[in-house]
This record gives sequence, structure tokens and C-alpha cells, in this order.
Amino acid sequence: MQPGKVWLVGVGPGDPELVTVKAARALAEARVWLVDDLVPAAMQCYASPGTQMVPVGKRGGRCSVSQASIQAQTLAHAQAGHCVARVKGGDPLTFGRGGEEAAFLREHGIEVEVVNGISSGLAAAQALGIALTHRAYCHGVTFVTAHTRDDGDPDWRALAASGTTLVIYMGMLRIAAIRDALLQAGMRADMPAAVVMHASCRDERQWAGTLETLAEALAAGLESPAIIMVGEVVAMAASCAPLPHAEEGQGVRAGGSACRLAAI
Amino acid sequence: MQPGKVWLVGVGPGDPELVTVKAARALAEARVWLVDDLVPAAMQCYASPGTQMVPVGKRGGRCSVSQASIQAQTLAHAQAGHCVARVKGGDPLTFGRGGEEAAFLREHGIEVEVVNGISSGLAAAQALGIALTHRAYCHGVTFVTAHTRDDGDPDWRALAASGTTLVIYMGMLRIAAIRDALLQAGMRADMPAAVVMHASCRDERQWAGTLETLAEALAAGLESPAIIMVGEVVAMAASCAPLPHAEEGQGVRAGGSACRLAAI
Repeated sequence: MQPGKVWLVGVGPGDPELVTVKAARALAEARVWLVDDLVPAAMQCYASPGTQMVPVGKRGGRCSVSQASIQAQTLAHAQAGHCVARVKGGDPLTFGRGGEEAAFLREHGIEVEVVNGISSGLAAAQALGIALTHRAYCHGVTFVTAHTRDDGDPDWRALAASGTTLVIYMGMLRIAAIRDALLQAGMRADMPAAVVMHASCRDERQWAGTLETLAEALAAGLESPAIIMVGEVVAMAASCAPLPHAEEGQGVRAGGSACRLAAI
Repeated sequence: MQPGKVWLVGVGPGDPELVTVKAARALAEARVWLVDDLVPAAMQCYASPGTQMVPVGKRGGRCSVSQASIQAQTLAHAQAGHCVARVKGGDPLTFGRGGEEAAFLREHGIEVEVVNGISSGLAAAQALGIALTHRAYCHGVTFVTAHTRDDGDPDWRALAASGTTLVIYMGMLRIAAIRDALLQAGMRADMPAAVVMHASCRDERQWAGTLETLAEALAAGLESPAIIMVGEVVAMAASCAPLPHAEEGQGVRAGGSACRLAAI
């Protein structure tokens, strides 16, 4: 049997309108979706009738499907002749293990096409109304995870010295340790910092403060998955952000577009 | 007169299919487009009939429209009651001066809504078939411009030490200087490096080599605008990238989707 094609599709930060036209086409073409846990159920508006939905959620601290199992399932569906959509939040090549999945499938002779998506860090910047690379403040932006594969730390000292805006993914469970590491790396305590949870979604929440007060975002009710931002440009959040929704407490805002984060 | 709304729209790297559904809606709603030079003419497929097209191209070394003039023109169209699309390549909050334009318009009482786009660095990674943050190689990625506002250099030493993949925008005119700076910063000469010109477009071209040979990309015919990538993950380019198009010479590939880069 001729194996099916696999689309490795990034559906963006959560708002179904932030899906690309190409992703929408791929999602409609697929007969099987293998869907990550953080992909909103609302994305099913792009599915053709009768599409098989396979949840393959992985989330820290929860019973989850292993990476090997996800790859084996994707391969099996493709080898059965189905056109498959491997559906991921954000961009599949940024913290998505998309590279590993694509390499595995190609080693098995499967055609893979990757469709870029809006990374949630970009949507978090949009939510705050800041430019990640405003030329008055910095010359770049670094997207980083709070811990590496072997659970070691990134080189916070080099990152702090880089002068780039730091956009930290998957950091909420280690937020106090990140604060301490950046302070020890010589970053000033009053460096502007912010946290955005569920960027672009109806239940989006924001917190803004400083590096020193960063862990207070937890007490303000923000939790994983969320994006942490640290850098001079974050100071623009207060002056530039639109305020389309009611405030829910000092320094915290809720809002966003018509989507819902839920396991499919 | 009630002023019109301004959509600050990122249309992505060039392929019209990599526009988001929300961007397509904004582009159709606008009656006036103010369009950057690098936005492909093919994007006009999203315009409603009768839309006024205003080119406001800026490109290094060419006769161009000043940033102040772009902002003044956008404001004037909005104050005339028109719904305006300020159309930018990539993502408007990443190297797009979107933050400055949004702040200016809001100071003048204009409603601004920013629509994220796929940054061309992500499309360049897709073109090469690499994950920018493959966990076996690194814990993050840095997007940086080759020179800052005052034409000073970024802190290449800190960037090299950060261990992140470096994605360098607007660097082709200074590619030899970038190579020298990274070598002097202690990065090894055989660090994998690549260049992607017109990522996602029909005239996309790729070059792959090492930091030491980086400037050879110029001789291979790659020129501005292009994305330079340096880091361990770039070694995956050869093993993972699909090869949908004929090779045009050693280490250089052409290909991409159905779009065309041209001034509107």
C-alpha cells in the first residue's frame, strides 16, 4: 500500500484565526489528526467530516503518551495509507520536537511537510502590546526553555549578557529559580518582566512587574502553560497595550480572542 | 469624522498561504493598504476590489520613504475615516518597527490591532528542514539583527556563549564581519552555518556550509534579503531537509512555494 503523507502542522498559540491558510488546508486534507494536549478543541472547525481524532497529549507531571509512542502511531497511520495531520501548538520547529518527528518519519520513507505556525511567544508580545525587538532597547530576542534535555540549566549568565529580550517557555514550574539565576547572572532587580498565560485565547491572563517580583505571577493566578518575558522592552507593556477587557486586579489583565484551551 | 481602525498585519515570509486567517480577514476589511517593499505582489489576492495600494518601501541603500513619513501617511488615512492595513513582511513585532508605529498611532487616538505573522527565520528553518531548538543540540534560539540602531554591533561574544541557535536578520551586507566577530568570540570555525534567501517563495535559495566558509554564500549568489543561521542544529539541514527541487550547484538549493517577491 502507498503510505500517506504526514503534515506536521503548527496551529499557533490558540486562537483558531491565527492558523495559516496553508495549515487550514492541511488540516482539512488529513483523515487522521494526532493532536497535542494544548491544542484547543476549537481547532476542529478545520477538520473534514469523519476525521479520526487521536489525542496524544504530553504534559509535565501528568500521565502521558511517550514521544516514541507518538512517533510510532503517526507512522502506523501513514503506513495504513492515511493522510495524517500531526497537530501541534505554536510552531512545530520551535520547542515542538517537530525536528525529531520529521526525521523519524523520513527515515521510514514517509513524505513529511512542515507548516510553520505562530509561536506563542509572539502572541504573548502581541497581548502585551510590545515589540520584542524594539530598536531603542535591544537588537534581538531569545526564545529559551527553562531547562535542557538533561535537566541542566541554560547559561543564564550568557543570556543575561546578550542584551536580547528573553522569552522563556515552560518556565512556570521553575519561576523562582529562573528569577534567582538571572539575578545571580547580574541582571538588575528592577528589569521589567511579564507573564502571559493562554496568549490569544479568551482566557488569556497577563501579569507585569519586575524580575525581583516575578514569582508573584504565581500568586496572581498565572500558571503553566505560560510565557515569561524579561527585558527592557517589557516596560512598554503598560504604555502600549490596548485594554479591550476589564481589569481583574492590579497588574493582571484578562482577555483575548474567541478560543478555548482544552484537551480534544 | 470618526477615524478608521489600523490593522498592523504581518503577512509572513512571502508565501501567500502562510498568511493567517485573521490577517486575511484584516486585509480584506481594509480600504487602504500601506505596503512594505518586501511584501510580494501576490498578497494582493487578499485585497477587496477597489482597495487603494500605497507602497511605502524602505530598503537599505535605495531611495526610500522615511519612518516618519510612513507613520504620518498611516495616520492621515485613518483620520480620513478609512480602515487601513499596514502590511508588513514576517511578524510586525519582530524587527518590523511595529511597536513604534502602533505607539505613534495610539498616541493619536487611533485604534490599532496587531496581527502576528510567521517570521522569516521560522520559514528559513522549515526550508532547511531543521528544528531551531532541537533538544539534542541546544535549549533555545536567538533572533538578532546584524547591527543595532546606532550601527554598533550586538554582543557577539555573549551570543556565541549563549549556546542558542543564532538566526541573523539583515546580515548579508556584513556577512564577512559577522563571521569574523563570531570567530573572535570563540565560536569554532567548523560550526554549521546556512543562508536562506526568499524563504517559502518560488525563488527560495539555500546555501549550507560552516562559519569559516560563511561568506561563500555571497559567491553562490545569495543576497539580501536573506536569513543567516549558525549553530549545531544547522548540521541537520543535510540529513533532514526534503529535496523537492533540482539542485543548482554544490551546497545550494532552490525551491519553495508559489509566490513572487516584488514591490507592489
